[in-house]
Amino acid sequence: MDERFMKKAIELAEKGGRNTYRNPRVGAVIVKNNRIIATGYHAKFGEKHAERMAIDHCAHPEELHDSTLYVTLEPCTHYGKQPPCVQAIIDSGIKRVVIGQLDPNPIVAHKGAAILKAHQIDVKMNCLTSEAESLNKHYNYFYRHKKPYIVLKQALSLDGKIAAKPGERTAITGKRANRFVHEERLGYQAILVGSGTVLADNPILLPSENSDYPPIRIIVDRSGKTLHFEAFKLFEHPEPIWIFTRSALQEKAPDHVKIIQTDDFSIPKIVDDIGQQGVQSIYVEGGAQIHHTFLQAHCYEEVITYLAPKLIGGTGLSAFSGNGMIDHENNLTFKSIERIGEDLRIVSERVK
Amino acid sequence: MDERFMKKAIELAEKGGRNTYRNPRVGAVIVKNNRIIATGYHAKFGEKHAERMAIDHCAHPEELHDSTLYVTLEPCTHYGKQPPCVQAIIDSGIKRVVIGQLDPNPIVAHKGAAILKAHQIDVKMNCLTSEAESLNKHYNYFYRHKKPYIVLKQALSLDGKIAAKPGERTAITGKRANRFVHEERLGYQAILVGSGTVLADNPILLPSENSDYPPIRIIVDRSGKTLHFEAFKLFEHPEPIWIFTRSALQEKAPDHVKIIQTDDFSIPKIVDDIGQQGVQSIYVEGGAQIHHTFLQAHCYEEVITYLAPKLIGGTGLSAFSGNGMIDHENNLTFKSIERIGEDLRIVSERVK
Repeated sequence: MDERFMKKAIELAEKGGRNTYRNPRVGAVIVKNNRIIATGYHAKFGEKHAERMAIDHCAHPEELHDSTLYVTLEPCTHYGKQPPCVQAIIDSGIKRVVIGQLDPNPIVAHKGAAILKAHQIDVKMNCLTSEAESLNKHYNYFYRHKKPYIVLKQALSLDGKIAAKPGERTAITGKRANRFVHEERLGYQAILVGSGTVLADNPILLPSENSDYPPIRIIVDRSGKTLHFEAFKLFEHPEPIWIFTRSALQEKAPDHVKIIQTDDFSIPKIVDDIGQQGVQSIYVEGGAQIHHTFLQAHCYEEVITYLAPKLIGGTGLSAFSGNGMIDHENNLTFKSIERIGEDLRIVSERVK
Repeated sequence: MDERFMKKAIELAEKGGRNTYRNPRVGAVIVKNNRIIATGYHAKFGEKHAERMAIDHCAHPEELHDSTLYVTLEPCTHYGKQPPCVQAIIDSGIKRVVIGQLDPNPIVAHKGAAILKAHQIDVKMNCLTSEAESLNKHYNYFYRHKKPYIVLKQALSLDGKIAAKPGERTAITGKRANRFVHEERLGYQAILVGSGTVLADNPILLPSENSDYPPIRIIVDRSGKTLHFEAFKLFEHPEPIWIFTRSALQEKAPDHVKIIQTDDFSIPKIVDDIGQQGVQSIYVEGGAQIHHTFLQAHCYEEVITYLAPKLIGGTGLSAFSGNGMIDHENNLTFKSIERIGEDLRIVSERVK
């Protein structure tokens, strides 16, 4: 019975889609005498949390007394953009709380459940936990590992090439896969490329759809080759851009471009800097050298490969190009394979 | 009704498996008053043809009079290893013949049907033709195009590498895929590799299973690096080996090794030489350079890719390596994708 209502809460949480941004997706269901009397979900970053929405939406607040709350994530205890949910739960008269997963965010972790218990509320943990966790894969990873979730994304010919030759833009995948990638970018808080990709492809690196929370476009550009703000299309779009470079600026950067000057281009350091800014997920679009350096640094959890039914031949640029040795096994496992138009989309994850 | 009996004939043909070798797989069903009175199939290269087997197997030969024969391939007209089937059909009293596909072999093509008609036998052509043709994909291609059907087979990491570095043997795919490749070799009349693959991997290049018709192992070895018959494992096995080389022999070749001395290493010429020997299909196992030269020469119909969930990194050997330009589009289409153990097997065919 608990699982049935938790399932409903999970469905509600999914409605948050990408609008919860750095907040988790959360759904809540309030049940009295086996009947749902109110529901809520977190609809948008900065707005009301799921538990409070359900409580506030209850048509007959007196029914909350002795009711059960099903919530996909441990209720929060802190004043953030919203007052703490635990207080609203205690005030409402709810007598039992069933929780999908504990919040990995250290501000909340275990405290929410503990405070409820201290107020004589019956707390049941870990109901449909893995389903609840999959609502917030990047959020959970970010707080558990204290670093962003990194996906290496590549588009390959059948012979493992990403371009007809180095420095040349080559259409590898078809239209439908390209549209799919645009959509997929919305699922990440940052998109990262090397300067070579900007020079060769002159990409925009945005989702095709507008979003209130577009991914931050990050360029790793040691020698400052992209610091010509009239020259590249990505600067024409006002969404934020960060450039890691050791080079001094020759011209004033536009307001939406943040220059991060550094001499340390080790990937773990760059990833750490990005994570310090609260970015929970990075979609690394290459090119071949950037992918190689991420692999070398062991900085990835997932590889998304778009495989095109084409052959480029030996003069093409091979995926994952670079000189440093890879001194460890890099075994993954295939999670999913699907056809997207004429191409394949293959998701693989690192074996833990 | 005709299709129902032809379907049965196709099922029978499949029993020939790989034992028909350079002969086509053929099935035959004889029907009288809507009842099957006899069946046959070509069971082994050099043995009785399907039509004759069905006629001979008929328990009551008088029933053949006015019966209908369903046969997946046009009956033969020539004395080969067996006497011509058309004569047996005429002699039997069969009054109607339904044919799956015409025989592309110029010795037979259209003649079988014409002779039957000349003997007042009612002939229906093209019943379930595409199903009948798929019984003998390589055979049909060989006679229609006057050259062997060529498959490029590769085992790749997720970043398009075939080895950790050039000249080094690297296990890319897992045990189940490796076993599958061994089995798959049985489906081809020749396996072709470059000398680099012999030097790096020291392979045996045989199916794991014994076969009466093992594939001929062909090595393209311009400078004769493999002509050391004690040095490589593949020479220890008595199945035939052909070596294309420009080099003179320094030691006597074993009996099962045929040395083909040539100065012309163009792929179409080599493929033509192989086809002249009656070889209908070639499974090209690489390495990267051989694949590149086959691509350059446009000599392939299919690519079978075993994709392993691994990353090798930029110092690895890229698939399809070579210097010559590829001056044409090489578009394929994905025909099938399946999981084999932890790996993927991806079949793609050239777009016609």
